[in-house]
Order: sequence, then C-alpha cells, then structure tokens
Amino acid sequence: MEFTHMNEEGRAKMVDISEKVDTAREAVAIGYVSMKRETLEKIKEGTISKGDVLAVAQVGGIMGAKNAPQIIPMCHPIMISGCDINFKIDFEKNRIEITATTKTVGKTGIEMEALTAVSTAALTIYDMCKAIDREMIINNIMLVKKSGGKSGIFERKGL
Amino acid sequence: MEFTHMNEEGRAKMVDISEKVDTAREAVAIGYVSMKRETLEKIKEGTISKGDVLAVAQVGGIMGAKNAPQIIPMCHPIMISGCDINFKIDFEKNRIEITATTKTVGKTGIEMEALTAVSTAALTIYDMCKAIDREMIINNIMLVKKSGGKSGIFERKGL
Amino acid sequence: MEFTHMNEEGRAKMVDISEKVDTAREAVAIGYVSMKRETLEKIKEGTISKGDVLAVAQVGGIMGAKNAPQIIPMCHPIMISGCDINFKIDFEKNRIEITATTKTVGKTGIEMEALTAVSTAALTIYDMCKAIDREMIINNIMLVKKSGGKSGIFERKGL
Amino acid sequence: MEFTHMNEEGRAKMVDISEKVDTAREAVAIGYVSMKRETLEKIKEGTISKGDVLAVAQVGGIMGAKNAPQIIPMCHPIMISGCDINFKIDFEKNRIEITATTKTVGKTGIEMEALTAVSTAALTIYDMCKAIDREMIINNIMLVKKSGGKSGIFERKGL
Amino acid sequence: MEFTHMNEEGRAKMVDISEKVDTAREAVAIGYVSMKRETLEKIKEGTISKGDVLAVAQVGGIMGAKNAPQIIPMCHPIMISGCDINFKIDFEKNRIEITATTKTVGKTGIEMEALTAVSTAALTIYDMCKAIDREMIINNIMLVKKSGGKSGIFERKGL
Amino acid sequence: MEFTHMNEEGRAKMVDISEKVDTAREAVAIGYVSMKRETLEKIKEGTISKGDVLAVAQVGGIMGAKNAPQIIPMCHPIMISGCDINFKIDFEKNRIEITATTKTVGKTGIEMEALTAVSTAALTIYDMCKAIDREMIINNIMLVKKSGGKSGIFERKGL
Repeated sequence: MEFTHMNEEGRAKMVDISEKVDTAREAVAIGYVSMKRETLEKIKEGTISKGDVLAVAQVGGIMGAKNAPQIIPMCHPIMISGCDINFKIDFEKNRIEITATTKTVGKTGIEMEALTAVSTAALTIYDMCKAIDREMIINNIMLVKKSGGKSGIFERKGL
Repeated sequence: MEFTHMNEEGRAKMVDISEKVDTAREAVAIGYVSMKRETLEKIKEGTISKGDVLAVAQVGGIMGAKNAPQIIPMCHPIMISGCDINFKIDFEKNRIEITATTKTVGKTGIEMEALTAVSTAALTIYDMCKAIDREMIINNIMLVKKSGGKSGIFERKGL
Repeated sequence: MEFTHMNEEGRAKMVDISEKVDTAREAVAIGYVSMKRETLEKIKEGTISKGDVLAVAQVGGIMGAKNAPQIIPMCHPIMISGCDINFKIDFEKNRIEITATTKTVGKTGIEMEALTAVSTAALTIYDMCKAIDREMIINNIMLVKKSGGKSGIFERKGL
Repeated sequence: MEFTHMNEEGRAKMVDISEKVDTAREAVAIGYVSMKRETLEKIKEGTISKGDVLAVAQVGGIMGAKNAPQIIPMCHPIMISGCDINFKIDFEKNRIEITATTKTVGKTGIEMEALTAVSTAALTIYDMCKAIDREMIINNIMLVKKSGGKSGIFERKGL
Repeated sequence: MEFTHMNEEGRAKMVDISEKVDTAREAVAIGYVSMKRETLEKIKEGTISKGDVLAVAQVGGIMGAKNAPQIIPMCHPIMISGCDINFKIDFEKNRIEITATTKTVGKTGIEMEALTAVSTAALTIYDMCKAIDREMIINNIMLVKKSGGKSGIFERKGL
Repeated sequence: MEFTHMNEEGRAKMVDISEKVDTAREAVAIGYVSMKRETLEKIKEGTISKGDVLAVAQVGGIMGAKNAPQIIPMCHPIMISGCDINFKIDFEKNRIEITATTKTVGKTGIEMEALTAVSTAALTIYDMCKAIDREMIINNIMLVKKSGGKSGIFERKGL
C-alpha cells in the first residue's frame, strides 16, 4: 500500500500509464446539496416553469468534467467520450441528489471526471441560490460505480 | 426571495454589480474528506517525512480558487488578493478537515472562491489516494464566515 | 488612422491603457443563427417543454464573455460586472436573434466580451442542433451599442 | 429528428460516443468579416509590409480551434491532428474571407473546431481593427465540407 | 529573510495583498534563444518575406503574460494594462534576444507576467523551429527592470 | 530545411500529423535556476523541514506540461501518459537543476511538454523566492533526450 503518485524524492508525479491498454471505462459519482425547504421549492418551481437552476448546474457539471485535468494537479488528460448528469429533488431530506456518469475509452479511469462533475454542479447550485440561502451544505460526494480497467467493477450505494 | 441570477426570460445571467462599491471582503469555507484509518495514517506519515499529499492539495486548492470564475458559470471574475488553506488530520473522526480563507477588494463576495478551493483540495486528496482507498467521501463543504459588503458578517460553525 | 495594436516592429502588442481612467462601460452586440424552419420549431418546442437548447447557449455565451481575453490574443483582461443574453425566435426569417449585453467598470471597453458572448452562444446552438441541421449559418454579428469611455456613445441597428 | 444532446430529463448531455470507431476526419468552415474599404486597404498594406493583422488572426484562430471543447459546453474533447487557416482579401465585396481546415483521427467530427477557428479569427480581426472601424460585421460562418465518420461526405459552397 | 509564500504549516499560500495600494507598475524581462546560425538565418528571412516565426512568438508571449496566474501556482490574478515584446536577431552570438515589457495598475508587481511572456515566446520559437534545430537553448531569462510599489526601482543589465 | 509550421501564405499552421502512427514517445528536458547562495540554503532548508518551495514547483511544472498546447500556439494537443520532475540542489554552482520527463503514446513528440514543465517549474521557483532574491536567472533550458517516432533517439548532455 504505497502512494502511486509519489516519486523517489517524495514529491508528486503524474503516474506513468504508457503501458496500459485502452479499454472502455465508466464511472458514476454521486453527491448532495442540502438546503432549506423554501430554497428547494424555489428550485423545483424553476424546473417546471421559468428559471431552471439545474439547467445551469447541468452545464457547469459537464464543463467541470472536461476541466478535471486542468483543476486536479496529477490527473491525466483524458478523452471523455460521454457525460451525463441527473438531479433528484428530495423533499424528505431537503436536498438535491446529483449523479454524474462519465465514460472514456482510454488507459486510465474516469472517476475524477465524475467526481469533478458532481462537485462543480453542486458549486453551481450554491452560487445560483446563495442570495436566498447561504447555509446550503455540499455533502457525501463519492464514487458509486467504476468499471473497465484491470481492477474490475466497483460498486457501492449512495447515502 | 427571488433568484437574482435569472433574467426575465427565466434564463441565467451574470448579476449586474456595476453599481456596487469596492470593499475589502473575506470568506472562509470548510469541508472534510473521510477515509479509512490506514489512509489517514499514510497521509500523516507523508507530512512528517516524504510524500506530502497535502502539499499537492494545497496547491490544487489555491489554483482552484483562482479558477472559480472559469468553472462556475455565473460567477464573476474577481481579483483574489489572498488565499490560504489549512488541513487538520483528525484521527477521532478519521477525516481531514480543510479550511480555505480567501480575500479580495472588490464589488462582490469571495465565497465561491473559498468553496471552490475546499472542493478542489478535497478532489486532489481523493485523486492522490484513490489507488489505496476508493471509498473516501467528501462532505460537509460549507461557508463558515463571510465579511465585507453590505450584508454584513455571517458566521457559523463547521460540523 | 493607424493600427493601435502594432508596435514599431510591425508586430502586435497589447495596447497600453495604464493611463486611462476607470469608468462604467457597457456594450451590446447582436448576431443571428439562420436555420431550417423545422430546426427552429424544434428549438421553440424545447423552450416551452423539455430540452431547452437556448438555456445551454445562454450559459455558453456568458462563459464565452468571461473567456474573451483568453481567446482573443490582444484583448485586455477585464472585470466583467454583468452579462446577460437574450434570444428571439423569429419564424419570419427562420432565425434566432442573439443579443448580449456586457458591463464593466474599467479602463477599456467591453465590446469584445459582448461579441464573444454572441459568437459562443451561436456556436453552442450550432453544436446542439448540428445532428438535425448541418446547414445553419451564423451571421451578422456586430456591435449595436457601446457607452462609457472618452469616445462617447455609439449606436446602430441590427439587420 | 430528435436532439441527440438532451437526456430524458430534457437537460443537456455530452453525447456518448464510446462505441464509435476512430476514423480520419476533416472539416472545412468559412466565414467573412465585412468592413470599410479603408480598413481593408490598411489590412492589405500590413500583409505586404509591417503590421500583419492576419498573422495575429491566424494564431488566434488556431488557438480557438484547440479551445473549442473549453468554450462550447457539450463539445467533446478531441485530438486535433492538423489546423490551417487561409485569408482572402476581397476588394469587390470589401470583406475578408476566412477558411479554416481542421483534421483529427477520432470518434467524432471536427466541425466545431473549424467553426470556432473561423469565429475566433474573425473576432481577432475585429479586435485589432476596432479602433479604426467599429462597424465591421462578422457574417456567414458555415460548414462547407465534412468528411470521415459514417455520415459520409458533406459539401456546400460559401456565399 | 523569510519566504513570504509559506504559511505557519510550511505550505504555500497566496500572499495577502489586500492592504496594499493600487499603483502603476511596470516590469521588463529579458531572455535568449541560442541556435545554429542556419536557423537564425532562416528566421531572419521570414521576418523580411514570408513565414515570420517571431510574429507567432509575439502572440504566444503576450498570451503567456495573460496566463501567468493560471500557470504559476501562487501568482495573483492581475489586470495587465499593457504588454509588448521585442526581438533582436543577433548574428554575433547566434541568438535571439527577447524583451517583454508589462504594465499594470494594481496591488502587486507584474514581474511574473514579464518573465512568463519571455518564457512563452522562447518556447514558441523552439516549437516552430524544432524540426530544423533540436538543439536550441533557452537561456538567461531574468528581470531587468521593475518599477512601482514600495520597493522602488530595480534595474540591471541583460547578459 | 524548411519550416514545417508555415503554410503557402507564409503564416503559421498546426502541422498535419493525421497520417502518423501512434507510438510510445518520451522526452527529457533540463534547465537551471541560478541564485544567491543564501536563497539556495533557504530552499534546501525547506526540503528538510517546513516550507518546501520545490514541492510547489513540482506541481507547477506538471500542470505546465499539461498546459503546453494551451500556451504554445502551434503545439498539438497530446495525451500525456506520464510526467515526473526532479530537482538537484547544487551548492557548487549555486543553482537548482530541474529535470522533467514526459511520456505519451501518440502521433507526435512530447518535447514541448517537457520543456514547458521545466520552464514552469523554474518560473514557480522564481515566484516563490523573488521576495528574497530578485536576481535569480533561469538558464540553459534544453532538450536532453527524445525517443519514439521515426526520427529515432536523440541524446545530449546538460550544461
């Protein structure tokens, strides 16, 4: 159990993946934005009439996925071959559930792109609603599925 | 209580802040990365000898703060005048606490920069450690302090 | 009538605006995407039910405005203080009219940001609809208003 | 005839191209910048002596092609394998014709890169000449050729 | 003599400049690209007829100056108010001398922008000529002038 | 011996590499930052206790490698498959030696990424130490190894 991202001098490197084969890979990440019930209602309203915050978060999230290697220092550049984001408005827990699915055909996994998509979508929701609710919380961002590559399939539930 | 980011057609706009005055502003955001005890020990080790994951997360977070307006669709470009990030390794809760402080002198607040710094630092930690712990969770990213501007001081505790 | 962007060697420079004063400035640019009637109907449908192409073009355009100095070689970095985009679906001319309004308080005008917003919104519409109509044409992108700065107010009609 | 860029919730997605095969692809786009005769003469002068506006537009356009996936929200990242831009100074119509040719070997077409190259080159011309001619118009940006991929060859004339 | 960029945990921070006043600042950096005589002759040719490598390096350098805060981790975002680059072809030393001048009105100096402009222009020359001369060397990049701010004027000769 | 980056109009193009085959490629570049002995001692101190300038330069350099096609106008986008940077503190010559190794599997070489990594790491060192030593010099950035592709292996010593 050693950090793969550290060189012999103890400093970070971008891991060498030159020898790995190109395979179809997929990752799914999930996350939540908790907020006041009124804020959630306001967002819900927008999705059925005018002012859809989630449409902006959708675009923010997908552009975030593309920006992952620009944002995360040791993350490899990757050719995303597909990205989708889904939102679930949950009035029981007063939160929005964000699910991002990313795909590639390449030498390394696409988890960071999925996680960055969720993070950016969540930050966009915060930004769009902060004037009416400063206390929103972004939480439980995690990987829930990963397939492709030699480590096989990983799966787990959201919270 | 209306969304300030929506125009009369119900689509997003960048809010007009031309009339606002330049004031000194500060924001503090907090967030956590929960992980296995072994992963946390491994990170702790690096901070005292070689292989400091947090040094990379520090840089990732600060560059993330600068990238906020590139990442978050409706976020104004802003002249960050200072940014610092602190980490607290917490063996009781098996998590790392990330605190980002951002400053500016300008027409609009600097919360999104602080929140983006925390998110990016958290994503960097995930990226650097994912080979040994895929189940890390990023959570409770929130604003804990905001000052400057006409809305006055906002303060709250982390979780 | 000399090019202000050329130095004494005949190569491009970023014009020195250090001596100019900060003033409130505004620019409005306009442009059109002409397309088949069926494509226009399809877009119209999306604005009233699901699948709003223009919501994506709105976000693309606003992010384009922010990116103007990254995209246009000699364009000064500028602190955009407001940006809005409006669309008019025109069934008489089978086209979408795009209007972008940008504002700043600074030393130089904000025309390039408005023009880039229109261009990017137009390219986004093309990208979203190209699978059903490859022959769309982007045309008549022009400045229609400019105020602030010592050259006074400029105004003209769209086409 | 459905929008391929919309998911089941009616929000934008990056289309999944994972299953598509890598093929050699090419796209050619065209566009024009109309201007006063004096401005055109001034630009022409620069191409034969000092102060070549088009040399800057050339670089702006090629960098624009590379930036297409950063600028256009749902555009896939793509490995451009070649990009060239040509200008024709047309004193009959008082305009500059811009032609961009882009190539890739990949899973999806390269039209957006060609169109973005033309747009960015046009915006650069506007930026470099706006001090002497604010009324320039960017028009008739369109795809004139596309080859590679399963939809076969598309060809059409400029205007 | 302490590093100003380090926080109390020994990790990097973006220095807090909130309290500093806005003043007019200027920086001049210099650097060289040494190469074979034949390569230099080839470049010289281009500046008088077709194929001007230095026109591309000029644009690369100016865009590099604008990108400094994106590239250099702890560098503050800054509003460049002017940037120019000059080249001197030196057949005695078989090298090109690159001089970049950058200006701003702001709270912090503009040296990094000037140095990045020189570096990027040098890298662009290398890139454009590497097919004919792989052994070019970029050297002696240094600050030669700095004014504005409380540290006063700094001046030194190139090599 | 002609410039491959020039089109028939004498303006820059991105060279067409569509026909080239994907091969494993590697490049190594080297460069130096010369400074006062005191500055070097200060940096050395940080590597063994707190305040590691080189950890920041490491991250800056690796992100620089990823940004090469954004920074260098005619540079192809490339999928870096590995990047590492090493530093040698040299008290005899009062300088830091920076070595960057970059890898890819692709149609074109990866020299520009290695050279950009060295340049960016050097600029980062300058930025972090400029408050205590404004006279540092970045020098002798050069390619020392290149393999892969049809031109075979190139090797040379640093200075």
